[in-house]
Amino acid sequence: MSATKPILALNRYEPGAVNAFAPALAERLAKRQATFGAASVLFYEQPIEMVRGQGVHLYDASGRRYLDMYNNVPSVGHCHPEVVSAIAAQAAALNVHTRYLNRMVEGYAERLLGKFPAPLGNLVMTCTGSESNDLAMRIAIAVTGKRGFIVTRSAYHGNTAAVTAISPSSFSAAPVAPHVRLIPAPDEAAAPDGDVGASFAAHVRAAIDSLNEAGIGFAGLVVDSIFSSDGIFADPPGFLKKTLAVVHEAGGLFIADEVQPGFGRTGGGLWGFSRHGIVPDIVTMGKPMGNGYPMGGVVTRPDYLAQFCQETGYFNTFGGNPVAAAAGNAVLDVLEGEGLVENAAQVGGLLCRELLGLQREFSRIGGVRGAGLFIGLDFNDPETGAPDTPMASHVINAMKQSGILIGAAGLYGHTLKIRPPLCFTAGHASFFLETLRRILSEGA
Amino acid sequence: MSATKPILALNRYEPGAVNAFAPALAERLAKRQATFGAASVLFYEQPIEMVRGQGVHLYDASGRRYLDMYNNVPSVGHCHPEVVSAIAAQAAALNVHTRYLNRMVEGYAERLLGKFPAPLGNLVMTCTGSESNDLAMRIAIAVTGKRGFIVTRSAYHGNTAAVTAISPSSFSAAPVAPHVRLIPAPDEAAAPDGDVGASFAAHVRAAIDSLNEAGIGFAGLVVDSIFSSDGIFADPPGFLKKTLAVVHEAGGLFIADEVQPGFGRTGGGLWGFSRHGIVPDIVTMGKPMGNGYPMGGVVTRPDYLAQFCQETGYFNTFGGNPVAAAAGNAVLDVLEGEGLVENAAQVGGLLCRELLGLQREFSRIGGVRGAGLFIGLDFNDPETGAPDTPMASHVINAMKQSGILIGAAGLYGHTLKIRPPLCFTAGHASFFLETLRRILSEGA
Repeated sequence: MSATKPILALNRYEPGAVNAFAPALAERLAKRQATFGAASVLFYEQPIEMVRGQGVHLYDASGRRYLDMYNNVPSVGHCHPEVVSAIAAQAAALNVHTRYLNRMVEGYAERLLGKFPAPLGNLVMTCTGSESNDLAMRIAIAVTGKRGFIVTRSAYHGNTAAVTAISPSSFSAAPVAPHVRLIPAPDEAAAPDGDVGASFAAHVRAAIDSLNEAGIGFAGLVVDSIFSSDGIFADPPGFLKKTLAVVHEAGGLFIADEVQPGFGRTGGGLWGFSRHGIVPDIVTMGKPMGNGYPMGGVVTRPDYLAQFCQETGYFNTFGGNPVAAAAGNAVLDVLEGEGLVENAAQVGGLLCRELLGLQREFSRIGGVRGAGLFIGLDFNDPETGAPDTPMASHVINAMKQSGILIGAAGLYGHTLKIRPPLCFTAGHASFFLETLRRILSEGA
Repeated sequence: MSATKPILALNRYEPGAVNAFAPALAERLAKRQATFGAASVLFYEQPIEMVRGQGVHLYDASGRRYLDMYNNVPSVGHCHPEVVSAIAAQAAALNVHTRYLNRMVEGYAERLLGKFPAPLGNLVMTCTGSESNDLAMRIAIAVTGKRGFIVTRSAYHGNTAAVTAISPSSFSAAPVAPHVRLIPAPDEAAAPDGDVGASFAAHVRAAIDSLNEAGIGFAGLVVDSIFSSDGIFADPPGFLKKTLAVVHEAGGLFIADEVQPGFGRTGGGLWGFSRHGIVPDIVTMGKPMGNGYPMGGVVTRPDYLAQFCQETGYFNTFGGNPVAAAAGNAVLDVLEGEGLVENAAQVGGLLCRELLGLQREFSRIGGVRGAGLFIGLDFNDPETGAPDTPMASHVINAMKQSGILIGAAGLYGHTLKIRPPLCFTAGHASFFLETLRRILSEGA
């Protein structure tokens, strides 16, 4: 089984490239390369130095403003004053682990758990989505007694050893591990009879059979319900129901990775899985949870957590500290106070309709899919239908020239990933649409 | 191979215990148990509700002050104003990932790398010590092509799937994984001829042989150079030199876990490994790095990081964000500005001498060991020499009654773990010594 090349091979700075950078920038880049080494990745052939963020905007060192349609971590807006002051106040008062009682932490845990359906009654606080998915995998192994996991072909679930094994979009030379099965993303357009629910469930069923035949057994399916790294596949709502039934019938757990769709992005409630009318066995959270404060979480059934804890203790030093809880509380306050879930649904819906209109005008747009403020736009060769990765790359760079930050996703990197902070307005959408129309009109 | 029971079985709240808690506290505890579930651990039979921290002190909900001799994360002092204001200022300005250039982040990376000997030239920023050790293990596997790791018998290196496998102090029912070998802690008192350097190196050599014979091979030795969870073994400085030679001769990597000893705690420079005059192949950092802001790091040789990156991409969303860098910078500023490494050496030295004096008075004190402000004090049966775990537990609870927070470590949990913030003064040491003398005089 071959793995995909990382999307980031496009639109990134190539160390040692012969670009004619200004000496000051060239020196910065050399220093950065010397300290961060081979793990350094910088967006764009000519990287941007960022100095300030506010709402949907980032500002570079020259004062230039960029409309941020890429960064999903500062979900309620860059440097939101309510979140910043909550962090500052709590950091000045107390920052300690969870082995003492603390009202801020307990209040947040209760409030957050109140957003989940029964029987998802326990919360473990971590520091990152990676730690959350790592723990979720261990819980699934403890509960099922099996080791096999199923993920989609270009999935990304995080960066620990265990989670990298289920993150094929991170593989470059590494082969797929024996306990992992990759299945195609749930692409409605490619599904037989257009029944993506049945076809996705059938792929999961086949992968379970394969794990069982190999004597590995099936522990869990890990999916983010918007299939972010695969190219964003959201519709129709409810298509994951059949898959949930298949997973449970086989004795496995359904792990909903809400690191990307969670906290309102899809516009259909706080969680991506809500749109599908399903109750997962484990839910993992990360990125937008603290609007940039490093925090994550795992929500699961108390009996599952208890089964896991019989074998191994779990403690997370920074996880659930009162500053994280204050940040998380402020994020929920802002989401509710500013109606950002509704905004994601409304502005995202508008944007999606406009993009579908643009698709009728420009034959290079091969598809538009999404939910709320998470939209994928494919570029394809109008004649052959082949993924047009260079066009996506061209648009990303042209957008940068026009003051818009945006990235790509999908197996071929030909899908524009539209994922702005949730305070994105109709005005911002207009600016983006005008810019996209102009770039497409000018051609590649 | 049997694993140890977690130390925390002592001096923790037992859910459902028939203690006569006040109704308000009982309700809090029930709620906390309902949300955190089986993963909930609270210190002390009657847990403390914390509301405020300042310097070396924590304050509970009733306003009671505790001298903190347990918490090693707020290393420059709870809620240090310089760190708090650095976090607040940067969080208000910009908080974003490392794929854009940013002076705060690059400046911190260069400054931190300047504290390491050649050839340790690259830094990967993570969010936790667990993520750091997880990544270090993967780098070691990539560089050596082998999978086996060696750790001490009661080690704790973190909470991911991979790192838990090398953290025997977390095991309860779980067996030791086939690719892991446990060796005894380097206890000078138990070493033949008192040559702990030779005996520890011999144990490592035997474990390497065992991994090779099993066809697993040797990837790395992971040790924290103060052996925190094993009961604190610091002396003589330099005893790890022989072990480093053995590790390198076998083609493995020496991974120095500086999550506990790092950032000045041992008083002999910034790093625990400095005291031993060795240069590790990989250094991992966490806990005190941001004085409570969730951050960690891995420092290694550029060629090792490059080898790792050939196989797999590594990106950490929150790792190396500008707020973390600001916190990390402020921690280095305070360490330098307030002379805290020197303070750790001086006050720690004083405290250690006084405790050795107390040992001559009280036969229940079986040993005193440490470096800087990381000291272990054993309780043993004066007649049989057997570890006296109940006595350690009694002292921890009596200390709480006297307004001092302290914990235990070691295979038997009979070692008092003395690990205050580094702004601990001679006055604080006197209060602790007087309290300990009184508790010991009163008997258990």
